[in-house]
Amino acid sequence: MITSLNNKTVKEIAALSQKGKERNKKDVFVVEGVKMFMEAPEERICGIYVAGSTEQALLKTCGEKLSRLSYELVSDEVFGKMSDTMTPQGILCLVQQFHHDLTFLLKNGIKERKLFIVLEDIQDPGNLGTIFRTAEAVGASGIIMSRHSADVYNPKTIRSTMGSVYRVPFVSVEDIPSVIKALQEEGVSVYAAHLGGKTCYEAFDYRKSTAFLIGNEGNGLRKETVDCADVLIRIPMEGSVESLNAAVASSVLLYEAYRQRRV
Amino acid sequence: MITSLNNKTVKEIAALSQKGKERNKKDVFVVEGVKMFMEAPEERICGIYVAGSTEQALLKTCGEKLSRLSYELVSDEVFGKMSDTMTPQGILCLVQQFHHDLTFLLKNGIKERKLFIVLEDIQDPGNLGTIFRTAEAVGASGIIMSRHSADVYNPKTIRSTMGSVYRVPFVSVEDIPSVIKALQEEGVSVYAAHLGGKTCYEAFDYRKSTAFLIGNEGNGLRKETVDCADVLIRIPMEGSVESLNAAVASSVLLYEAYRQRRV
Repeated sequence: MITSLNNKTVKEIAALSQKGKERNKKDVFVVEGVKMFMEAPEERICGIYVAGSTEQALLKTCGEKLSRLSYELVSDEVFGKMSDTMTPQGILCLVQQFHHDLTFLLKNGIKERKLFIVLEDIQDPGNLGTIFRTAEAVGASGIIMSRHSADVYNPKTIRSTMGSVYRVPFVSVEDIPSVIKALQEEGVSVYAAHLGGKTCYEAFDYRKSTAFLIGNEGNGLRKETVDCADVLIRIPMEGSVESLNAAVASSVLLYEAYRQRRV
Repeated sequence: MITSLNNKTVKEIAALSQKGKERNKKDVFVVEGVKMFMEAPEERICGIYVAGSTEQALLKTCGEKLSRLSYELVSDEVFGKMSDTMTPQGILCLVQQFHHDLTFLLKNGIKERKLFIVLEDIQDPGNLGTIFRTAEAVGASGIIMSRHSADVYNPKTIRSTMGSVYRVPFVSVEDIPSVIKALQEEGVSVYAAHLGGKTCYEAFDYRKSTAFLIGNEGNGLRKETVDCADVLIRIPMEGSVESLNAAVASSVLLYEAYRQRRV
């Protein structure tokens, strides 16, 4: 059992929780809690740490998955130092990062019924994670993010995905306009959520392959991105509301597409 | 200019940011930033604090509203202690709490076209604030929350409302089932978002007066609450998603009602 706060592994894991650079260097990310452990693809798990006082309870909750895999016991104090959460559940894993390929992503899903969400510079990890969760819920083909978006592997993002990060393919790209072009070449119609949109979002047919562009929380989409879209759509708003939360805007559009596809 | 971190006012404001009890005792809440100051109803503002280094810029940005009202200057260090944000904008106000009345709330809006959202034990301040923002965007008549929901006046909630807290009437109630009865007596149909719902949400007509019940992030709605609802509705989900984020679920339902009302 690791009991020293100065243990090298303990320091490494704390650094992996806190620093994106460290995560990328080691090509892993940290997930916490029973749900995130249970849903983690087994072949990607490269380390499991369990707090001493919770071991017996976790062996029951996590069933044979935990008993089968080897894990390292750490003292509760050490676990507290590794953990990013206020009320840790006593289990934490290192998981290998994903490297989805844009070409694969563009081909993902039923040919004529793809559904993408393209995020430009989304800053809030909670919003990003929530968008992953909603994207899985509507059966989206994938998520495309600009390089300056929040880090998918930030512990807050990971928590908010509620496991969808394991299942929704995503890529981070340098240049959004060129991805829009690639989407259009695949027969995907690209809709930009924009305050300047003349027509409300529900007026369009999203049953065919569709991508929605969602911009930064404060500034919306860049002009050069908007210019590449096929259509500007508006989510109408009453009162003095100037914009919606980015995860809410994404959800309204994704669920409208999903509603049309199910009718 | 207040320059001492030990100044009584400074300590009081830090306590008002941090403690719900203090806020309720003094019947005020703290708002930060230019937008929240500009949108605050003037008659409710009972204190304005400006960081020395930002005064001149703020007098420009905030125009005559700031020049007209009296404010207290504080040193940047003192402002940092008062502030709850990572990158403070240098303006912070105390605003009088709202005391909306349930009877008034139930009568609010066009008689046959009311739209309520009823929240049972929503725990996350960000979710609660985001629901306020979306509720204003769809022209909702009001928000009803159980007593054990997150605190509306928590600085995180306030920030997430983006000013909607000033404009959407809300009440906190002891007993949700009795409120459901009161809504039904007003002719409002009450729909519970529930995983056990047999019919998808979009199958219903929300053009008449409608209320949506949304449950706690982890546990959903209580059984006694679900039992009072007129209909259980389901938001369909693909993949391994077990539930949606509470603010996302609220948005999907509120925007579907708003879509139907606009068509």
